[in-house]
Amino acid sequence: MMKLNPKYLAEALGTMLLLTVVIGSGIMAERLADGNVAIALLANTLATVAGLYVLIEVFGPLSGAHFNPAVSAVMAWRGEIPKADLLPYIAAQLFGAMLGAWLAHAMFDMPILQWSAKLRTGQGQWLAELVATAGLLLVIMRAPVGRASAMVAAYIGAAYWFTASTSFANPAAAFGRMFSDSFAGIAPSSAPGFVAAQLAGAALAVVLNRLLTLSPSA
Amino acid sequence: MMKLNPKYLAEALGTMLLLTVVIGSGIMAERLADGNVAIALLANTLATVAGLYVLIEVFGPLSGAHFNPAVSAVMAWRGEIPKADLLPYIAAQLFGAMLGAWLAHAMFDMPILQWSAKLRTGQGQWLAELVATAGLLLVIMRAPVGRASAMVAAYIGAAYWFTASTSFANPAAAFGRMFSDSFAGIAPSSAPGFVAAQLAGAALAVVLNRLLTLSPSA
Amino acid sequence: MMKLNPKYLAEALGTMLLLTVVIGSGIMAERLADGNVAIALLANTLATVAGLYVLIEVFGPLSGAHFNPAVSAVMAWRGEIPKADLLPYIAAQLFGAMLGAWLAHAMFDMPILQWSAKLRTGQGQWLAELVATAGLLLVIMRAPVGRASAMVAAYIGAAYWFTASTSFANPAAAFGRMFSDSFAGIAPSSAPGFVAAQLAGAALAVVLNRLLTLSPSA
Amino acid sequence: MMKLNPKYLAEALGTMLLLTVVIGSGIMAERLADGNVAIALLANTLATVAGLYVLIEVFGPLSGAHFNPAVSAVMAWRGEIPKADLLPYIAAQLFGAMLGAWLAHAMFDMPILQWSAKLRTGQGQWLAELVATAGLLLVIMRAPVGRASAMVAAYIGAAYWFTASTSFANPAAAFGRMFSDSFAGIAPSSAPGFVAAQLAGAALAVVLNRLLTLSPSA
Repeated sequence: MMKLNPKYLAEALGTMLLLTVVIGSGIMAERLADGNVAIALLANTLATVAGLYVLIEVFGPLSGAHFNPAVSAVMAWRGEIPKADLLPYIAAQLFGAMLGAWLAHAMFDMPILQWSAKLRTGQGQWLAELVATAGLLLVIMRAPVGRASAMVAAYIGAAYWFTASTSFANPAAAFGRMFSDSFAGIAPSSAPGFVAAQLAGAALAVVLNRLLTLSPSA
Repeated sequence: MMKLNPKYLAEALGTMLLLTVVIGSGIMAERLADGNVAIALLANTLATVAGLYVLIEVFGPLSGAHFNPAVSAVMAWRGEIPKADLLPYIAAQLFGAMLGAWLAHAMFDMPILQWSAKLRTGQGQWLAELVATAGLLLVIMRAPVGRASAMVAAYIGAAYWFTASTSFANPAAAFGRMFSDSFAGIAPSSAPGFVAAQLAGAALAVVLNRLLTLSPSA
Repeated sequence: MMKLNPKYLAEALGTMLLLTVVIGSGIMAERLADGNVAIALLANTLATVAGLYVLIEVFGPLSGAHFNPAVSAVMAWRGEIPKADLLPYIAAQLFGAMLGAWLAHAMFDMPILQWSAKLRTGQGQWLAELVATAGLLLVIMRAPVGRASAMVAAYIGAAYWFTASTSFANPAAAFGRMFSDSFAGIAPSSAPGFVAAQLAGAALAVVLNRLLTLSPSA
Repeated sequence: MMKLNPKYLAEALGTMLLLTVVIGSGIMAERLADGNVAIALLANTLATVAGLYVLIEVFGPLSGAHFNPAVSAVMAWRGEIPKADLLPYIAAQLFGAMLGAWLAHAMFDMPILQWSAKLRTGQGQWLAELVATAGLLLVIMRAPVGRASAMVAAYIGAAYWFTASTSFANPAAAFGRMFSDSFAGIAPSSAPGFVAAQLAGAALAVVLNRLLTLSPSA
């Protein structure tokens, strides 16, 4: 009998819970905030920061806790995961992201199956996703040992506010949020632009990381 | 003369103070927030996160700082506490939880004896408690040494927002909150459903933890 | 020529800055919050938590970073500072606390010399100060090495909300806040009740700490 | 061919991103907060704290992560960076700060080139900048190894609220914010006063640090 590989299970479960945190806290925040979007985003931010920190600590030892195809692609390119793991990782992340949206809907007594109607498009949004993803990858590549969980969580918390797109920075997040017509959602028609900008940002991070690593006399 | 066992005292005192933090900060937040429930829950969340972190650090070396019958049951099942400690732990937790509600009322000049009238019921709420408790137990079972206090506190902070029930995740908390007709309360008639969902969540966590621990070739 | 003792200077400077943080952030928060007291207290809390953490790290190696006569009294009683240091510590703390209020007023273009008119009195308030101070001392006496700064800061952040008095827990804080007719102030007539409750709380902490330390068979 | 020195690149990139965080989160917060300035400053504060922590961790090993001419001046004076690095550091910081404002504008679909019209002047503001910068330098000079990132970030978070000026504490930040007519901006006519006060504060920190280091019998 084929056995489930724990690292793929970890990526699926971790990405599922990440999307449940992002979408679920967005629903809760919007319901309670009485129209004040700043308060809703503040609550959404704090829940995401805390949840992401915990998820990275819990699943890091099992799979590296990527939860993000752009991260997995860079890690495979750098040889930190086997290249043969890349496609299963991405499949697990996308599947988990979709399940995470559905789990949030089930808890909040909403219809399970939804499509977001929230358009997120334009040059500013795309630049924001490029910056957000480049920053995320730089943080991951340069975090001191043992501090990656706190640093990635803090980074995303800042990026929810300093980027114009509230920093998805993750193709699996863009995919999973398409399935939720709520605070954190993104219309399917807007997702490809986000993903393209994210991949460009990941590539930019690799270049910047190189420049920062060169010795002055090299 | 029979002497007080410090580990039972620690569970009683810690659970008492946990409930005082949860219920007291809920009362303060509701009084000040002028009807904005998102701001009240935000303050309630931050106070709980900070207080829980401190309580786990202070009482952890004495009793393990469970403050939670579902946690004690799993710890006894795993052999991390003697099985003979399970009932005294649960008794100390329930007694402490009730005292914690009363201490909050005394500080805020409210009648000491109260019953909550806040109904919390339905499939979404029960699923939320199952998810919240499964997540809490997974975090506890997989936290790296020395990080459990920060991780449990952060997890509960996220779960206040990403679960539809604001994440009790603790039968002793459900018990203690019955005694408070305030922001954090739960009607006695709603408590059994919460506790049943919490115990199912704890069992699910044990199964998930097993699946994540299996080697691919096992 | 008599030289300034760095540990007394550290207590004076640290207590001054603590009061500047508490009172200054209270003034800023009240000015900006447009009547929403929950938001003002939230900002006041976060500034205090962050500032207190930093002050304890900076001045801890010099003087122990008490900033609090109740803490100094317990430390002298336990032999962790020389008994001869107790009075100079308290004098430095009280003097620093007053200067801290004045520095906040100078920055915010308010009259330097003020007396608070905010009455804080009654059984609930006194019980709250007793609980707040007992908790603070327990945290200080039981914090693991290297975690006291984060734990004390987190504790005070929680206690701003779970106690009915917003947790002064410090006779020097009560003294300094008398000099400020602003958000964080306390009327001079209310201060003695707070200080008495704080000292009772410190004594209770010493007893509780003893009970928790006894072995079951002792 | 002349090569780019990684430490200057690190100062430019780090200061750029710091200003993008400060200005970008200010724009986002002001847009969403619906006129409630306390909520806007709260979001601006949390984004700055989280972003600053990450930037110091990422760029610290490359350049020391000053992002601040006052810090670089003190570090050069103490011999912690070569004196020949001081001018290139400052040039990189000022250039990065300007680019950071422009990057924020590009993401938020605003005109790239702007001048702030927000006057920030008067004795209270100048005293606030002096206190804010003195505190920042004291924190940097006295932080225990490995805690500087968290301490500097926490300090700035507190100082956004306890100083009357929201604590720029950084001549490069004052310079970069001149280029943004948004929440975090400062009118060019107000910048020289801020910078003068910041330099005085840095000098005060050097004196205070000396006093705290003297032995009592020295």
